[in-house]
Amino acid sequence: MKDVKAEIITIGDEILYGQIVDTNAQWMSEELSNTGIKTIRKTTVGDVRKDILASFSEAEERADIILITGGLGPTKDDLTKPLLAEYFNSPLVINEEALTEVKIFFERRGRELTKLNRMQAELPEVCTKITNRMGTAPGMWFEKDDKVFVSMPGVPIEMKTIMLEEVIPKLHEVFNTPVIYHKMIKTIGIGESFLSEIIEPWEDNLQGNIKLAYLPSAGQVKLRLTAMGGDHAKLVKDVDEQIEKLKPLAGKYIYGYDKTKLPAAIGQLLRENNLTIATAESCTGGFLAYQIISVPGSSDYYIGSVLSYADEVKMIELRVSKQSLEEHGAVSENVAVQMAENVRKRLNASIGLSTTGIAGPDGGSEEKPVGIVWIGYSDENRSFARKFQLTTDRLLNIQLTTNIALNILRVEMIKNNA
Amino acid sequence: MKDVKAEIITIGDEILYGQIVDTNAQWMSEELSNTGIKTIRKTTVGDVRKDILASFSEAEERADIILITGGLGPTKDDLTKPLLAEYFNSPLVINEEALTEVKIFFERRGRELTKLNRMQAELPEVCTKITNRMGTAPGMWFEKDDKVFVSMPGVPIEMKTIMLEEVIPKLHEVFNTPVIYHKMIKTIGIGESFLSEIIEPWEDNLQGNIKLAYLPSAGQVKLRLTAMGGDHAKLVKDVDEQIEKLKPLAGKYIYGYDKTKLPAAIGQLLRENNLTIATAESCTGGFLAYQIISVPGSSDYYIGSVLSYADEVKMIELRVSKQSLEEHGAVSENVAVQMAENVRKRLNASIGLSTTGIAGPDGGSEEKPVGIVWIGYSDENRSFARKFQLTTDRLLNIQLTTNIALNILRVEMIKNNA
Repeated sequence: MKDVKAEIITIGDEILYGQIVDTNAQWMSEELSNTGIKTIRKTTVGDVRKDILASFSEAEERADIILITGGLGPTKDDLTKPLLAEYFNSPLVINEEALTEVKIFFERRGRELTKLNRMQAELPEVCTKITNRMGTAPGMWFEKDDKVFVSMPGVPIEMKTIMLEEVIPKLHEVFNTPVIYHKMIKTIGIGESFLSEIIEPWEDNLQGNIKLAYLPSAGQVKLRLTAMGGDHAKLVKDVDEQIEKLKPLAGKYIYGYDKTKLPAAIGQLLRENNLTIATAESCTGGFLAYQIISVPGSSDYYIGSVLSYADEVKMIELRVSKQSLEEHGAVSENVAVQMAENVRKRLNASIGLSTTGIAGPDGGSEEKPVGIVWIGYSDENRSFARKFQLTTDRLLNIQLTTNIALNILRVEMIKNNA
Repeated sequence: MKDVKAEIITIGDEILYGQIVDTNAQWMSEELSNTGIKTIRKTTVGDVRKDILASFSEAEERADIILITGGLGPTKDDLTKPLLAEYFNSPLVINEEALTEVKIFFERRGRELTKLNRMQAELPEVCTKITNRMGTAPGMWFEKDDKVFVSMPGVPIEMKTIMLEEVIPKLHEVFNTPVIYHKMIKTIGIGESFLSEIIEPWEDNLQGNIKLAYLPSAGQVKLRLTAMGGDHAKLVKDVDEQIEKLKPLAGKYIYGYDKTKLPAAIGQLLRENNLTIATAESCTGGFLAYQIISVPGSSDYYIGSVLSYADEVKMIELRVSKQSLEEHGAVSENVAVQMAENVRKRLNASIGLSTTGIAGPDGGSEEKPVGIVWIGYSDENRSFARKFQLTTDRLLNIQLTTNIALNILRVEMIKNNA
C-alpha cells in the first residue's frame, strides 16, 4: 500500500519569530501517525503573502494532504483565508451556515456581533465549511485533483476539536488509510533504564509486526506498541497478547493505557473502592488538587483541600502543632504526616494526601536544599510520609511531587485491595 | 539595509512524527530575532536522505543563513553529517582538534572512547569545526558564495551553548546585521476584535518602521510591536512613544510587557501595595492557587486556599451558611461572596478571591448551564461577585475562570490605588 503523505504548514510571525512554541504541529503529526498518515514535512512561514502562497504550492508538490493552521483571526495581519481564496481562484462569499454559527456563538456569550466577526463567516466559495464549536473562525476543506487542503484556526483547543471531530474521520474515508494500531502502556514509579532492563526478555521476543518505543516524561515512562497490518481485529489481539505477557514483569508499574491519565486512573480506583480523598498542599500549591479535579466527575470522590502556604494556615486550618513546626520545620516528616492525617479527619475523607517541600528556586538551606519534598499519606489504618530529593526547577518540582503523590495513593489502594 | 534572512532546518523522525515538541526552533528564532536576523522559514524533515538534501538546496535558494539541528548522533539513522559532506562535495576526514576535544570529554567522565565516538571527530574537510563544550558532536560552519550553513546537535543544551557562544557572534560579524527591537504589550479583559476597534486610530497612525501583530490566547490578547532600523536607542524611544500614545486608549487592559506573566504582574501589585491574598476555590479546584504560586517568592503575599469541592467543606471550612447553599445553590452570587469574604477573614488576608461554577462537561441544568461561573472578591471595604458564561470545555473553563479572577483582582488593586 502506498504511503499517504501529509505536510503541516503553520502560519504566523509569532511562531516564526519564536514568540510562542508551536505545539500544534507536534500534536497534529502525532494524531496523523496514529491514523496511518505519514507526516513528511513541517513548514512554518510568517504573515507574508508570497511566502504563504509558496508554501501552498510547494506542499502540493510533495504531499497528498496539506494541513494548515493559523492566520484565521479577524484582524488585518491574518492572511490565510484571502490567500486560500486566491490560491484556489475562488471568491470570498458569506457562508450562511457559518454566519449563523458565529451569531449563536456570540449570543451565547451575550455579546454583540461586530463587523469584524461577521467577516469570519466569509469563506472561499469552493471550500467546504468545517464547524468550529470552540471559536468563531470556521475551518475550511478544499479538494484539488487528488490532494486535500485543510485550513484550521491556530488556537489549540479549536484546532484539536476540529481535527478529532471532523478532519481525521474524513481523511480516513477519502484516503482509505492503512490499518495501524497503537497501544500506549503507561507506567509510573520506575525510570526508563530500569524498566528497559526488567522487560528486556519480553522486548526481545516481540513479534515482527509490532514495534516498541519508550516515551519518558516527568516521572513517567510510556511504552508505545505499534502494530501494522491488514486486519484491525488481528492487530488488537496480537497487541493484547503481548501486554498479557508483559504484566508479570512490569504490571505493578502500569497505571493505565492509551489516553488514560494518572488522575483519571486514580479516580477510577477511588470510585471502585468507594473512597474519598482530601489533600493538604504546601509546595504543590494547588497543582495536586487541580490534577485530581481535572477529571470530569471528580466531585464524586474529591472532597477538597487546604492549601497551607503560610505556616499560620498549617496551624489554623490543619491543626499542625506549633511545636512541630518549630522543632522540625514545615518541611519535615512530622508535619507532612500531621497535614495528611488532619485534612483527612477534618474534611471527613477516607484518605488524606499532603505535600510540603522547597520548590525553589530560592528558600533552600544546606540541611534542606531546594528540591526536598515530603509527601504524606493517611487512611484510617495508617499514616506515613516519604522524602524525595528532586530538581532545582520550581515548576518541574511541583509536577514531579504531584505525580509521586498520586502514585503513592495508587500503590496504597492496590495494596489494600490485594 | 537589506534583511538578513535565516531558515531553520530541524532534522529527525521523532520531531516529524510528533514524539517530541521542537522547542529548539522556537528558541533559535527568538535569538536570531533579537540579533536582527529575520527567520523566514522553519522546516522539519525526517531521517530521509532525499528529503534532507532537498531541504538544504531549497533553503539555500531562500535564505542567507541556514541553521540545521539534529541528526548528528553516532548511530546509523543520523544522516546530517554524511549528507553535508555530500552536499558540499567534501570528504569526511578526522579533525584532530575535534578528536582531542572528544577524548578530553570522555576522559573527564572516566569513560573510554568507542569507535563510534571516534567517528564523531570526522568532519567534512571544507567546514570549520565549532567546539561543543556540552557534548561530543562538534558543530560545523560552512560558507558557500554569500551563504552560511551551520550544523548543530539537537540536544537543547548543546545547541544553545553553541549558538550563544559561537554562532550568533560570528553571524553578527559576517552579516553586519540590522537592529530589530520587539516589545510585547500584554492585555487582558478585552477580546481581540473589540481591542482592535478601540485602538484602530492608533494602529492607523503607527510609524512606517513599526509593525503591529495581535496574539490572542485564553482570555488574553498580546500586542507585539516590532521596530526595525539602524539605532537601538532610537527604536526603543520610538516604541516607547507609541506605547504612551496607546495608553489613553487601552491602558486599563495592559497588565505587563514582554515576558511578564499575569500571575507575576498580580504578585508585583500585591507586593507594592503590601497586600496578601487567600483564595477559596470550587470550580477551579486549585488552578487559581497554582497560578499564583507558580511565581517564585509568592509565599511573601500568598497565604493559602481552601478548596471547597464538596458543599460540606464550604460549610465547615468557609462558614458558608447552609441556608444560602439550599436557597441559592453552591453556584450563586451569594455563595461566591461568602466564600471570598470568609476565606479572607479566616486566613487573615487583605483580599479574598473565590470561584464557584460548573466546569463541565456534566452537571449543568437549564437554569445553570455548563460554563456558568461566579467569581467573588472581598477586601476590607467591599465584597462582590460577578457572573460569567464560559464554554463547555472543562479545562478551558478552569483556565478562563482563573484568568478572569486574576484580572478582577488586578482591576480592583488599580482602582484602589487611583
